Amino acid sequence: MLFTIDKAKKIIEKEIEKHTFGEHPNELYEPIRYIMSIGGKRMRPILMILSYRLFNEDLKKCIKPAIAAEAFHNFTLMHDDIMDDAPLRRGKPTVHEKWDVNTAILSGDVMLVKTYELLLTVEKKYLHDFLHLFNTMAARVCEGQQMDMNFEKREDVTLDEYMEMIKRKTAELLAFCMEAGALLAGADSKNRQLLKDCGYHAGIAFQLMDDLLDLYGDAHIFGKTVGGDIVANKKTYLLLTALSRAKENDKEKLKQLLSLDGIYAEEKIKEVKKIFDKLEVRTITELKINEYFEKAFQCLRKTEASMMHKNQLKKYLETLSNRNQ
Amino acid sequence: MLFTIDKAKKIIEKEIEKHTFGEHPNELYEPIRYIMSIGGKRMRPILMILSYRLFNEDLKKCIKPAIAAEAFHNFTLMHDDIMDDAPLRRGKPTVHEKWDVNTAILSGDVMLVKTYELLLTVEKKYLHDFLHLFNTMAARVCEGQQMDMNFEKREDVTLDEYMEMIKRKTAELLAFCMEAGALLAGADSKNRQLLKDCGYHAGIAFQLMDDLLDLYGDAHIFGKTVGGDIVANKKTYLLLTALSRAKENDKEKLKQLLSLDGIYAEEKIKEVKKIFDKLEVRTITELKINEYFEKAFQCLRKTEASMMHKNQLKKYLETLSNRNQ
Repeated sequence: MLFTIDKAKKIIEKEIEKHTFGEHPNELYEPIRYIMSIGGKRMRPILMILSYRLFNEDLKKCIKPAIAAEAFHNFTLMHDDIMDDAPLRRGKPTVHEKWDVNTAILSGDVMLVKTYELLLTVEKKYLHDFLHLFNTMAARVCEGQQMDMNFEKREDVTLDEYMEMIKRKTAELLAFCMEAGALLAGADSKNRQLLKDCGYHAGIAFQLMDDLLDLYGDAHIFGKTVGGDIVANKKTYLLLTALSRAKENDKEKLKQLLSLDGIYAEEKIKEVKKIFDKLEVRTITELKINEYFEKAFQCLRKTEASMMHKNQLKKYLETLSNRNQ
Repeated sequence: MLFTIDKAKKIIEKEIEKHTFGEHPNELYEPIRYIMSIGGKRMRPILMILSYRLFNEDLKKCIKPAIAAEAFHNFTLMHDDIMDDAPLRRGKPTVHEKWDVNTAILSGDVMLVKTYELLLTVEKKYLHDFLHLFNTMAARVCEGQQMDMNFEKREDVTLDEYMEMIKRKTAELLAFCMEAGALLAGADSKNRQLLKDCGYHAGIAFQLMDDLLDLYGDAHIFGKTVGGDIVANKKTYLLLTALSRAKENDKEKLKQLLSLDGIYAEEKIKEVKKIFDKLEVRTITELKINEYFEKAFQCLRKTEASMMHKNQLKKYLETLSNRNQ
């Protein structure tokens, strides 16, 4: 039977559905099942499975580690949402809103522990190396989140610093998923490295696209308010690019717009967008996104696996690069 | 050279001091070094090392896992202190007070990840089983904390439920430390089980003693305000024992005292203590503590190891049973 992305997603959803994480006390485990059930693209487990499949078609050794990657991602969301004071996640109340902050802290903690327990299904010969990869990635994701929080208090964030932050906060996990898939399938270190780099570049592209879609995406499809990052004065790739390219006049105007609290949101978005347009921020960002996706494709091309399987992975990355949500 | 508890403690302190956990961003790792440096009894790593030493005198394979146990314990404190809104820990400001709640959440998260990285120093042949023990324990500690929080909102907590809660929240980690020490030293499953049970019983005794010392300890030495649990209406072993033994009259009076907010703390403590004394709560608790320490000693006696080493471990447990802090 043909293996499709839809099939991969079904396998993942089924596995998530049957995994309870734990039973008693219910207050601890229900929020975990809740956040795992409210959807998302399942991009991380899909990437791990497709990377594994480049070298090995018998998926059973990869399913639970793939679920673990999704669980880790959701654990970070549960705690990040507390820190960002976010009321909604995927259109549903966040855990600290639906329950309370203490529940979100403690459920998140046990979720990370249960993620490690899922990782113990990894074949013993790979276990040490696999966990070392995971730990390294997990620490870097936390470091990225801390950098992101630090940026909120600073007015002198550079584009380089921003790139370093999204590398950690977003790209590391995608790189891990792809490298881990290759590792579990028995790929050699050269091919592991290629897939890691592929995930890394795709992860950066993915995050830049997130920044772009916040302002230029279709509000209905994207499911967020257009321009939310501008209203929140978030230091995104768009804003930092604009600030780095703006002449004295526009830079002053931008900074003034950022400092205004009384201005209507719509007006603020419109004014900032006008400056972005003048400075060709959209085009520059799109070029950057394409550059990173192209780098990802190059790594994939060099990977020693069947053309058919590589094409499937490439097509999946392309759907991510063409996404409007 | 003679191996003493002091020497074990010095080894641990030295190892903790040289372990940075991470560097950048500093906001993430400084709170970890802070909480690890503000002391405590180091009971958990000492128990792991002494248990290991029953079967193997070459300690080097045990030091980093022992530090990991201490790190895990401090991770739970960092997050518990947020949940309990505690201003002080060991007489020093808690992490969320000294920094802020977000820092305490995220530093705690990365601290748990770095704990797992420390555990990767475990010999490969033991790694899977060791991590499974650790994960099981860690989830139970979280479950105990959740039960504890649930108890705050309930008026019908039974003694059995309370015992179940402290088993998870406190005893599981001590049992883990002792079993893990035996496992790493190559002990067989029978001896591992004996040490696990020893730690379990000692852990329960230790927590009951904590409850007792809160009211009957020496305020100066214990470093807390006497009767703090009564003022906070905490469901301790003392209170639940009193409620389970009190006749209608005293039960009413106790419940009334618990519900009074306006009453002066000192008066409240005095009145509650009067009822405790009448119901022989102190004696009953002391008997219970001795019963559990005796169970712990029995397990240790049955363990197949040199008398000399067993005596050292027994003496250490005795110092815990005679502690006034």
